[in-house]
Amino acid sequence: MDIKRLVKKDVQRLRAYSAREVPCRIKLDANESPYGFSAALQAAARINTNRYPDPEAKQLRGILARDLVTRPENILQGNGSDELIYYLIATFGGPVLFPTPTFSMYGIISRALGEKPVEMPLDGEFDLDLKKMLAAIRKERPRLIFLSSPNNPTGNCFSAERILKIIGSSTGIVVVDEAYQPFSSRRGFLPLLKDYRNLVIMRTLSKIGLAALRIGFLIADKEIIEEVNKVRLPFNVNSLSQAVAVAALRKRNDLDRTVRAIRAERARMFTAMEKIKGVRPFPSEANFILFKVKDPGTVHASLLKKGILVRNIDDAVKGCLRVTVGTPQENSSFIRTLGVILSAKA
Amino acid sequence: MDIKRLVKKDVQRLRAYSAREVPCRIKLDANESPYGFSAALQAAARINTNRYPDPEAKQLRGILARDLVTRPENILQGNGSDELIYYLIATFGGPVLFPTPTFSMYGIISRALGEKPVEMPLDGEFDLDLKKMLAAIRKERPRLIFLSSPNNPTGNCFSAERILKIIGSSTGIVVVDEAYQPFSSRRGFLPLLKDYRNLVIMRTLSKIGLAALRIGFLIADKEIIEEVNKVRLPFNVNSLSQAVAVAALRKRNDLDRTVRAIRAERARMFTAMEKIKGVRPFPSEANFILFKVKDPGTVHASLLKKGILVRNIDDAVKGCLRVTVGTPQENSSFIRTLGVILSAKA
Repeated sequence: MDIKRLVKKDVQRLRAYSAREVPCRIKLDANESPYGFSAALQAAARINTNRYPDPEAKQLRGILARDLVTRPENILQGNGSDELIYYLIATFGGPVLFPTPTFSMYGIISRALGEKPVEMPLDGEFDLDLKKMLAAIRKERPRLIFLSSPNNPTGNCFSAERILKIIGSSTGIVVVDEAYQPFSSRRGFLPLLKDYRNLVIMRTLSKIGLAALRIGFLIADKEIIEEVNKVRLPFNVNSLSQAVAVAALRKRNDLDRTVRAIRAERARMFTAMEKIKGVRPFPSEANFILFKVKDPGTVHASLLKKGILVRNIDDAVKGCLRVTVGTPQENSSFIRTLGVILSAKA
Repeated sequence: MDIKRLVKKDVQRLRAYSAREVPCRIKLDANESPYGFSAALQAAARINTNRYPDPEAKQLRGILARDLVTRPENILQGNGSDELIYYLIATFGGPVLFPTPTFSMYGIISRALGEKPVEMPLDGEFDLDLKKMLAAIRKERPRLIFLSSPNNPTGNCFSAERILKIIGSSTGIVVVDEAYQPFSSRRGFLPLLKDYRNLVIMRTLSKIGLAALRIGFLIADKEIIEEVNKVRLPFNVNSLSQAVAVAALRKRNDLDRTVRAIRAERARMFTAMEKIKGVRPFPSEANFILFKVKDPGTVHASLLKKGILVRNIDDAVKGCLRVTVGTPQENSSFIRTLGVILSAKA
């Protein structure tokens, strides 16, 4: 029996997500926070392993709603944002429009679900190319548009004005993925939910110190939440993650302190990187910095030889690497090592 | 903007899973184990909340492979079996054939993903109606067949001979969902994987005391695993659940002891229920017992009035309720109360 022949055509063409584990001393490749919340783990000890999780994640949605000044019925919990992208595409279908380069999951999940991805390149400033985006909206009539702002891997926020034009012009749903919003100095799009019924905001706990838990969430009009909730698996967020997330969110000050520390370090890193000859860092509103070098492959390998793992983005943004903001010590080590590597090359 | 109009037709017709929480003293409605493994929760305290989970769940798959005498590359981990049903349908598509009554998620997820569910009633013995199933295979050419054995909510195993006929006749994938296999006296289908390349076995940790974790897994030919793995979200099983599951599986004896206790209690309950006039329990190979009464709605309500929650299955199996095997004390309380209710009705 030919197994491959039984597989849907779109899936046949897919490749599995590669998760090669690279041994390193300083891990700055995955946009994780360098700060964990081990104190919150105690909450996991109090759950009953034999009982199913709360399918509505009431405590979690309650505390998120309070923090975001919205209502629990405007929030939908996911097993990470990834799962919510799955659910959004299952609910609304394609075509699915997004600018590139951006978070790779919009395209991967569209293909997994047999929906057409439509990719539009960003402009020279890594901002939305409004003309191209509006033309794509007219031509393809996408049922979903994903805008990651701040954008990964470029680090910038898209122009709010352009995002609003796109929301206003779309006859489908527009998802503003604010995974990195906590690190941004710009206003997020939450206050605009009341003005645009087709707007969905996506957030996550993964970048602010809780990646292990897999918790993402949508904020949107109640009617949108209700529709997406129909395709949600009832027990999609396990009891351990619910309990630990609630415990961590109750210490909002601790979370906020680490976010502030990361923002301060980002500024320090940017200034230091600008001073290294042959390195061009791009301004960032996220917890990472995209930077250009002459020979990204070699620089990546040289850093790794010193135990420092960053992400090679060369295939998405020519000549670029991406470094996540780590602890002050990790960042200093990265800056020092990068300086040595570049001066050796000069 | 009319949100509903933007939603895919199949999803428009869906209803969200209803998760009404019913307050009760003795919870015997959800096929949970009455025994938790709180000792294993200590493993959760050792994870780093800020780091993403192991996307390949290597430790977990390793220990499962050892227990099942197979290889890690023949195992795919899921955020519960539910998620694996999603992935199977996304990978192979429909039509999706399954007998009814059975686990409701096969139909719900087929509809959520826009694939056609094909339902074939079981015969009078709750066994597979081979003639009808084979006719459906010829006519509909299902790309996926789900056979839950032991079956929920009927509790029986399907005839192994009939299952084999179906596997042999199908030109698609046949998934034998062995969620309740640990409670069965029959041989499972694992040893047959080497003979049937289109066979997939689905298992879960949810019925044996770890429902809170959301861990299900597939066992199948490496090529099938690789294809389904393409649509899997990379971080679908969080770090906490991975760690706690590994810790619990390392104490396999403790898990097995609770399974034996549940089987012994099931036998005791069955005998006791048979003796109650007006109650007809059906033999069970699972951790629950289906039973027939004259007026299931009233009996359900009367039990609940005494704080005992069971599941009303009347809409799927006329006149039936389903009780999960609990602790000896819970079961005795259930039997006593059921006896009082039925004698009052007589």
